[in-house]
Amino acid sequence: MAGGAGTRLWPVSRDTMPKQFIALLDDGMSTFQATLLRFKGAAFGEPIVVTNHEFRFIVAEQMASLGIAGEIVLEPERRDSAAAGAVGALLAADRSPDSICIVVAADHAIADAEAFVKDCLLAATIAADGPIMTIGIEPDCPSTAYGYIERSADVLGERAHGLARFVEKPVREVAERYVAEGYLWNSGNFIFAIGTILEEMERHCPEVLDAARRSVAKAARDLDFLRLDTQEFAKAPKISIDHALMEKTERAGVLAASFDWSDIGAWDAIHDLKVKDENGNRLEGPVAVLGTTNSFLRSEEMLTAAVGLDGVIVVATQDAVLVAAKSEAGRVKDLVADMKRAGRREASEHLRIYRPWGWYQRIDIGDRFQVKHISVKPGGLLSLQRHHHRAEHWVVVHGTAVVTIDGTVSLFHENEAAYLPIGCVHRLHNPGKIDLKLIEIHVGSYTGEDDIVRIEDVYARADSSV
Amino acid sequence: MAGGAGTRLWPVSRDTMPKQFIALLDDGMSTFQATLLRFKGAAFGEPIVVTNHEFRFIVAEQMASLGIAGEIVLEPERRDSAAAGAVGALLAADRSPDSICIVVAADHAIADAEAFVKDCLLAATIAADGPIMTIGIEPDCPSTAYGYIERSADVLGERAHGLARFVEKPVREVAERYVAEGYLWNSGNFIFAIGTILEEMERHCPEVLDAARRSVAKAARDLDFLRLDTQEFAKAPKISIDHALMEKTERAGVLAASFDWSDIGAWDAIHDLKVKDENGNRLEGPVAVLGTTNSFLRSEEMLTAAVGLDGVIVVATQDAVLVAAKSEAGRVKDLVADMKRAGRREASEHLRIYRPWGWYQRIDIGDRFQVKHISVKPGGLLSLQRHHHRAEHWVVVHGTAVVTIDGTVSLFHENEAAYLPIGCVHRLHNPGKIDLKLIEIHVGSYTGEDDIVRIEDVYARADSSV
Repeated sequence: MAGGAGTRLWPVSRDTMPKQFIALLDDGMSTFQATLLRFKGAAFGEPIVVTNHEFRFIVAEQMASLGIAGEIVLEPERRDSAAAGAVGALLAADRSPDSICIVVAADHAIADAEAFVKDCLLAATIAADGPIMTIGIEPDCPSTAYGYIERSADVLGERAHGLARFVEKPVREVAERYVAEGYLWNSGNFIFAIGTILEEMERHCPEVLDAARRSVAKAARDLDFLRLDTQEFAKAPKISIDHALMEKTERAGVLAASFDWSDIGAWDAIHDLKVKDENGNRLEGPVAVLGTTNSFLRSEEMLTAAVGLDGVIVVATQDAVLVAAKSEAGRVKDLVADMKRAGRREASEHLRIYRPWGWYQRIDIGDRFQVKHISVKPGGLLSLQRHHHRAEHWVVVHGTAVVTIDGTVSLFHENEAAYLPIGCVHRLHNPGKIDLKLIEIHVGSYTGEDDIVRIEDVYARADSSV
Repeated sequence: MAGGAGTRLWPVSRDTMPKQFIALLDDGMSTFQATLLRFKGAAFGEPIVVTNHEFRFIVAEQMASLGIAGEIVLEPERRDSAAAGAVGALLAADRSPDSICIVVAADHAIADAEAFVKDCLLAATIAADGPIMTIGIEPDCPSTAYGYIERSADVLGERAHGLARFVEKPVREVAERYVAEGYLWNSGNFIFAIGTILEEMERHCPEVLDAARRSVAKAARDLDFLRLDTQEFAKAPKISIDHALMEKTERAGVLAASFDWSDIGAWDAIHDLKVKDENGNRLEGPVAVLGTTNSFLRSEEMLTAAVGLDGVIVVATQDAVLVAAKSEAGRVKDLVADMKRAGRREASEHLRIYRPWGWYQRIDIGDRFQVKHISVKPGGLLSLQRHHHRAEHWVVVHGTAVVTIDGTVSLFHENEAAYLPIGCVHRLHNPGKIDLKLIEIHVGSYTGEDDIVRIEDVYARADSSV
């Protein structure tokens, strides 16, 4: 499951590029990629990745860069984890109705992949002819950021018990009692036999299963993606697996994990996971501190400095800055919601916009003009397009461009410029072996992104869509 | 005196554009401008502005925009306030040896200009045939950021006493005692008869006076500026008026001010001077807060957000971010010194670089290319120049440009582009009535600012200088 939004890790994580696709930890890869790599072994089949349609090119690219093949299933909208889990189970059933499925989130940090895989396989042997298994985590503090699991007296195997009940994220005092009484954190990983999950969903959340089944039956192939039917999928109740199924079923068990785990929910968790200096600080990028302790500073580009602070998170991206008390890092989610309501673009969109052909980024804007940096991958081909309100100047600063203007095809090299008059039909292609970089200057009465008519597109994008 | 650096107000105030020239307060003008306006009355002669040569165009522009004429005296290097004061007094003596001079710093915040002027005139009547007068401020707290003045029993006039002694910035306990004993803050404003100051300087700091006198005698006219002789001025000891003169002379008095005053030394003082909301916050620019109190957030451009903080300063410019505990704001000076030692450009230079013809700002940089936004004032004329390592593309996005390339003069309008091959001799001029804005793209093996040969310049700038 790789469709979440991760707004508590704003401004690095935003709707257009959420946390599971960003290299936040020290392994240099995204948690989505780390998750895929954990299952890259003979014991496992090809993964089924259920994600939002907006992330399809990121998912495909991050999988390709690891050489991992798999089914990429696109949700037309977010309906929480029950629908995503049901879709995954149905597609796995198509492969083989006797499969054991492991449902995992793409945003978990697990340093010891070997122990994790061993536990998954252990849970799988129990789930093969038994209950839906979850993985519980031995708490190391009375966290209020996680739900808890109470175990029953039934012993299902090594470190495995029956599941007495799930409980929601508690307040501090209750969390302390849970920890004292031996409750486990709910990690949100599930292992089950397909037959079992389908029976239990039919019983406890049939609307979810029905909507999932019909959206799969009417799904369409779109390039390498399986696009779930929009109308059918929209009928699925927006509910988590926990609420829809796990809290209701009597066929559930829990394995106490042998590995350390974090769902990197907020910046405090990121800081906790990282190696820190002798002052308890973690400094990433161009940052400077004076008299500052137990803090996390991360900057992408801007010189970012802290003076006289303790326990503070400072995250600076190219267009937004967050400063938060570490102890209040979970409230960033509410802040982002506030900023979205206030109509702030930066609350949901990054400055750099990824496209299947590469990316672009605004570098300047003013009255009647805008300047962009455009980077096109080798082989990348932008849509054949036209603008009604702007002329464009393209200056190639790296690589080679094939530019089509009103049917005339020309080759442009570094230090050469093309002019595209208002209304011309044009297309940009990188025929080379290295990235093509160009500076694009729009001049006109309106320079918004939506002044585009797409006439033809190899990436099968609808007119004006991403 | 307008030559200071103001590093405690980094990142807004930097060496290339220090605090006295920036609109930091709610009156919408710089403290330099506000200082000039206080003396724009019949009682005063034209001001003599002593500043660093690097600020000459800023000073001239800010004076011109207020319609204030005056002498602009350029210090070739910083030698602290004694030398600047001596130069000012000598130049005033040239006008009239019987003048009363008022020496003020350009970075003071005084809301009640009328009371200030009244006090200056009151002090001037005492100074006319009496001591060198200073203006002391009644403390409203035992500040450790200011020096203190002890008054003697001699009554010189209304609110005016003899000066018993100056004391350096004290530690907290000592400051509390001073406040209890009726000491005043030293505001650093001086009022004196020219004859008196020259006599006292001759006696207590003759090296300062000698160097000042010789640097004035050998000064050169440079456009509208009086440029002090570099070698002579360098001989002046680097010392403040307080240390060089006021602590030694027996001819000093002090007037207790009738106005509120701040030297806006650091961000905490700025926050204190501003109107705040019901949570004690002052928010400027695109900022958002949640659960945050008693804090100052200022952002020029980037969305800047704070969560769960109290008493914090957050200042975001286009290329740098400061986060500081308000109580530790004075330490920003040390931070900036650290960052300068580490060779960080942002510690001393702004991203936007002002020139006599307008300004330019880097908007993108990469391997073998750089992109700038250039803004040229009406009538502005850049130097005739040549680059050895880069070609340039200019796209006009606003206004009109006259471009000279290897002797050929052409007119370029909005949405037109010029190409400047490597090595060509070129010049840019704005012949119009509105600002000329263009996007400049450098492509080449070296895109540093110092790849420039200036062949001719109406602003009399040395090759490669500002």
